[in-house]
Amino acid sequence: MELCKSIDEVRDFIGKQQKAGKEVGLVPTMGYFHQGHLALMEKAREENDIVVVSLFVNPTQFGPDEDYNEYPRDLDRDLELAEEAGVDIVFAPEADEVYLSQAATKVMVEGLTDYLCGAAREGHFTGVCTIVTKLFNIIDPDRAYFGQKDAQQVLVIKRLVKDLNFDLEIVTVTIQREEDGLAISSRNKYLDSKEREAATILYQTLQLAKDLINQGKRDAEAVKERLINKIEAEPLAEIDYVEIVDQSTLEPLVEIKGEVLMALAVYIGDTRLIDNLMLEVN
Amino acid sequence: MELCKSIDEVRDFIGKQQKAGKEVGLVPTMGYFHQGHLALMEKAREENDIVVVSLFVNPTQFGPDEDYNEYPRDLDRDLELAEEAGVDIVFAPEADEVYLSQAATKVMVEGLTDYLCGAAREGHFTGVCTIVTKLFNIIDPDRAYFGQKDAQQVLVIKRLVKDLNFDLEIVTVTIQREEDGLAISSRNKYLDSKEREAATILYQTLQLAKDLINQGKRDAEAVKERLINKIEAEPLAEIDYVEIVDQSTLEPLVEIKGEVLMALAVYIGDTRLIDNLMLEVN
Repeated sequence: MELCKSIDEVRDFIGKQQKAGKEVGLVPTMGYFHQGHLALMEKAREENDIVVVSLFVNPTQFGPDEDYNEYPRDLDRDLELAEEAGVDIVFAPEADEVYLSQAATKVMVEGLTDYLCGAAREGHFTGVCTIVTKLFNIIDPDRAYFGQKDAQQVLVIKRLVKDLNFDLEIVTVTIQREEDGLAISSRNKYLDSKEREAATILYQTLQLAKDLINQGKRDAEAVKERLINKIEAEPLAEIDYVEIVDQSTLEPLVEIKGEVLMALAVYIGDTRLIDNLMLEVN
Repeated sequence: MELCKSIDEVRDFIGKQQKAGKEVGLVPTMGYFHQGHLALMEKAREENDIVVVSLFVNPTQFGPDEDYNEYPRDLDRDLELAEEAGVDIVFAPEADEVYLSQAATKVMVEGLTDYLCGAAREGHFTGVCTIVTKLFNIIDPDRAYFGQKDAQQVLVIKRLVKDLNFDLEIVTVTIQREEDGLAISSRNKYLDSKEREAATILYQTLQLAKDLINQGKRDAEAVKERLINKIEAEPLAEIDYVEIVDQSTLEPLVEIKGEVLMALAVYIGDTRLIDNLMLEVN
């Protein structure tokens, strides 16, 4: 496995492979690998000749009051895990290799980013779209892999790929969960043991939503109220959003019908966690 | 010469050439070719194996009160001129091939676009940056060619290429002029014979600027006042802007020194014309 720190280095390495006709899969990450990342790497390994993992905690997608500095980092452990997963190249640049001091260019997706995490985290998706555009241009992959836990991110990036005519495929992998249902996330590390227990409220709430819909409930406001009540009963939890939206537009639904996305963002103590469930409802 | 109307078609054609190791030069245009375009094609012909000219009047770079509908178009004549210039592929898509109805992604360069034409034409450079990003992704050129007449556009696109890590070179060609000095532009077609005569005021004003600087004048405000007075003496001319700025930041200069860009935008009747002059001043 190669570790590349510079753009020239990684381009040089990948360019040679591409000239030899090899197909390249890119897994963009912020590191601190867990089962979610490993599932992406595994899928990329199955589908490509060369697997590149980018590892970069992207400052532009964090708000000024968010956890950029605290975000967990462990390069040595990540390199071991990537090697075990059969990754060919880890691209782990420093911030000043990625962003020139005079950088002034932004990529943004409008509309889709007005909802859910976009409403709560100003500038977040512009940071995501800009770094993803840069990584696509640096690596020039045939396929790029994203986790379905960040459902809105997947939708935004698919929109960006179509709109900017990137010649690549976006592949998604389902949410990886702990045994008690908690969606696996790098930010779970922030939770102390009481918070860790309380954090299952996200999964339990999504299960309640599923049950209510299976019982025939179709009124989005009424279902949301039940979900909100459930979360509010957990003293360590504070709701950022609870939404029932259309899977492709992210617009809030009045009637729960069609391709439905239920999405939650909940603070457990100081830690903001997200989870979601996609359902096809008749 | 190939004429491609669809993205798949042009990608397929160019992809084959690129796999065979050919280098590709792209000349992005809005058509209605004149000597300025031909100079770009000629330069691209010298430097590349394959020359692609894109021909697309991009709606997103026109303001709501601008001349998108009136912008001159003549595909048959353009194809003849491109063929004579040794172009290999003309990519001339319809608007709905380029912009999907749900398109929501924008590329913008901040800072540089606050000045000159960016200040006068809201959203113009975002439209330019978005279409250029798309064209770079569709064609994947080794080099792209732009005219120095659009000095600010060149600077903005060079910034975009660096910031988004496009792996290509931006090549510029000097302003092509009529015998009386008028910078050649597709919009010159809008001028009636009186306006055509009056339009030389732009070039004459830049020549006055050069003379004043050669005489040792360094006070930007004082020089600008002389230039403004000259233009205002022409009854058919109305100033949009007269600026003396730094060539790399576009920030207005107080003292005329260093790498200087003098840039004008002037309405002649209803037609907005631009021109500029770059000088190294000690």
